Amino acid sequence: MLAASRVDALLVSHLPNIHYLCGFTGSAGILAIRGDERGAKATLYADGRYTQQAAEEARDAKVVIARKSVLAEAGAGLLRAKAKVVGFETQLPFASYQQLDQMLRGKARLKPLPGAIEELRISKEAEEIEQIRASVVLAASLFQTALSAIRPGVAENVVAGEMELQARRAGAEKMSFDTIVAAGLRSALPHGRASSQAIPDTGFIILDWGVILAGYCSDMTRTVHAGHVSADHRRMYQAVLEAQMAAVAAVKPGATTGQVDQAARKVLEKAGYGAYFTHSTGHGVGLEVHESPRLAKGQKRRLAPGTVVTVEPGIYIPGEGGVRIEDMVLVTDSGGEVLTPTTKDLITV
Amino acid sequence: MLAASRVDALLVSHLPNIHYLCGFTGSAGILAIRGDERGAKATLYADGRYTQQAAEEARDAKVVIARKSVLAEAGAGLLRAKAKVVGFETQLPFASYQQLDQMLRGKARLKPLPGAIEELRISKEAEEIEQIRASVVLAASLFQTALSAIRPGVAENVVAGEMELQARRAGAEKMSFDTIVAAGLRSALPHGRASSQAIPDTGFIILDWGVILAGYCSDMTRTVHAGHVSADHRRMYQAVLEAQMAAVAAVKPGATTGQVDQAARKVLEKAGYGAYFTHSTGHGVGLEVHESPRLAKGQKRRLAPGTVVTVEPGIYIPGEGGVRIEDMVLVTDSGGEVLTPTTKDLITV
Repeated sequence: MLAASRVDALLVSHLPNIHYLCGFTGSAGILAIRGDERGAKATLYADGRYTQQAAEEARDAKVVIARKSVLAEAGAGLLRAKAKVVGFETQLPFASYQQLDQMLRGKARLKPLPGAIEELRISKEAEEIEQIRASVVLAASLFQTALSAIRPGVAENVVAGEMELQARRAGAEKMSFDTIVAAGLRSALPHGRASSQAIPDTGFIILDWGVILAGYCSDMTRTVHAGHVSADHRRMYQAVLEAQMAAVAAVKPGATTGQVDQAARKVLEKAGYGAYFTHSTGHGVGLEVHESPRLAKGQKRRLAPGTVVTVEPGIYIPGEGGVRIEDMVLVTDSGGEVLTPTTKDLITV
Repeated sequence: MLAASRVDALLVSHLPNIHYLCGFTGSAGILAIRGDERGAKATLYADGRYTQQAAEEARDAKVVIARKSVLAEAGAGLLRAKAKVVGFETQLPFASYQQLDQMLRGKARLKPLPGAIEELRISKEAEEIEQIRASVVLAASLFQTALSAIRPGVAENVVAGEMELQARRAGAEKMSFDTIVAAGLRSALPHGRASSQAIPDTGFIILDWGVILAGYCSDMTRTVHAGHVSADHRRMYQAVLEAQMAAVAAVKPGATTGQVDQAARKVLEKAGYGAYFTHSTGHGVGLEVHESPRLAKGQKRRLAPGTVVTVEPGIYIPGEGGVRIEDMVLVTDSGGEVLTPTTKDLITV
């Protein structure tokens, strides 16, 4: 990869990429990879907080504990190794880019290499898929916890807290993102993190959550309903369910990510809800809860076996409420396998 | 500030700074501020997920919901306003800098303005201090939850989960960082996030946690001990306690942050633990759990009233264990007020 990108070295600064390449899970660090015709050598630069953890976790990489800045130490290492062209990841903050640029100026050239490691991560290995399956199953087990906790008058964030405690008990490292519990009119917020609002007597409740288990993320959404379900609400739910199933059916090797998005969008447009589906249909999941590929309008990337994506259409009607249904789907050799083992029937609480 | 920095406009991309300036708490957005002799005008660019939330939250800013990229929309707005020099924050990822640079090239110049808004945030207003006090008190109430949950055989992450659920019940938005519960030999990890390891029969247990309440963070650490406390462990605890109290006593207006660090360091060096104090003494806390100023060796910044910092020396002996004690301290007109209302006596569980 280094040779194909015409760089002597690559500075990996995006933490999930460092995790992917060498196993280190600390909250700061730089992985420098140098390569020549004989192969590649990796050095992990971490700070004093991570002396023990870096030694335990890092595979196939020499560990250097930086006395001051990990970036300065990594830059000095590249200068000593006489690297001439140094690739870097474009998530790098501008301030760090500037610091590196000043260190290397006149001695080496910096070359942006956006998404190089992310590209490698799109197709999961068998072992990664097993970890993802386990993460999905653990997340799914929390739906029962949520159903037991939900009742009118209980705060959304207490429902989230009960799910999170159960996740910890079941061995999750943590949630893969801030748990969403959005009840009643708040269900019209596509991104309604659990708040102190009490669950009302009636209306939709969107639950969107996931866990991290052995580094791998899960992500799922179910929408349940409190109280009497009006004909309008039943129609909303049914439209999202049909859209979700149409998009799941469109997942197969060779399909573009835009086609999967379109499959959901078409159903919702036909049902008259097109204007209320305000986000894209899904995204890759792995070491990050949002990673490549994006399943969005017009995207041309073709799906290949080993990719894991979410399929999560939703509609959000301000002043009324919202519905979203989300599964994780593995692209197989012949189609898509839904990993999320949870009913999509409308449950009333 | 715009005039002093010689820019016509400032693009604020760091989310806590956006929150500080206009109240918006979404997970993505850009705040563009344009200024001339008549005053400043702010525009918040957010995406379709945040239509309702941005309208509800944004103060003193016009809201624009971007159809595609918020960055592209913000750049287009600057071009229409004929801004010539555009300041930006250096946390901006290189990819975004590059995108902006391409849009503005030949029409406007980009000027890095690192830390401009962070500087404004260092001195807290009275209302902010009240929010921080409330966040500290809520966090402190979780110590009792932790003490009730801790017993040999219980997993560290179940202790963390019980604290987190109680935080939710008490109205916290979320934890301000991944809760640390590091028991036995893991207490020698300065950054030991709660793991599936069971609490052992004997040894130190470091608990480091905080909550976010109404946007403001808290951060505190207590170290407790399971089983019999050896003379060595008692001496370790006593040294850290004395170092922490010496540093707290050094907090006053006009003292440098380096002097506060030195006050803790001197005590630990004298007690023979200097080599095991591997991090800095503290940091500012506010809308972010880690913000300016840093309380570290050699830092020259002088403390001023209204700043809130942590004071958290610790020692970590591999193969043995670790101790850290952390309070939040408000710099007052005459000294430092410890905000954390929790005993620092060594508690055995």
